[in-house]
Amino acid sequence: MTADDSDWAEVDRALERTLEFPSFPEAIAFVNRLAEVAERESHHPDIAISYRQVTVRWTTHSAGGITDRDRALADKTNRLIGP
Amino acid sequence: MTADDSDWAEVDRALERTLEFPSFPEAIAFVNRLAEVAERESHHPDIAISYRQVTVRWTTHSAGGITDRDRALADKTNRLIGP
Repeated sequence: MTADDSDWAEVDRALERTLEFPSFPEAIAFVNRLAEVAERESHHPDIAISYRQVTVRWTTHSAGGITDRDRALADKTNRLIGP
Repeated sequence: MTADDSDWAEVDRALERTLEFPSFPEAIAFVNRLAEVAERESHHPDIAISYRQVTVRWTTHSAGGITDRDRALADKTNRLIGP
């Protein structure tokens, strides 16, 4: 899977990207990597898991939309995709 | 958190329940327990994580709605809530 900024769409004031993994366990492993980053950064994306697909949404509720922090974390998310 | 069947609502032909955990890591730990059951049973719920809240949706796409299997797995989900 390749990743660049253009893979993220602005949907309802959030940066959103849907990723597809080869298997459900690989999708869950990605969610765990993402959760670790989120907890460390104290910034938590919305995550939706539908079998092998994971949708990640970064937004800053207190700011009412997308901030530079969300953009930076979207970039970090891209780097978590590989196995 | 207590759990019984009445905690599940039928929403768009799925059994849906939203759970709130004391922390984000505890929410993620629950998702991992749920994912383990789902993979073992070869039946995967939709899962939405929003900080400390996790929404679980059981449905059988091939049947176009809720089956006894979904009801059984909703019951198993209840038993995964505790720490």
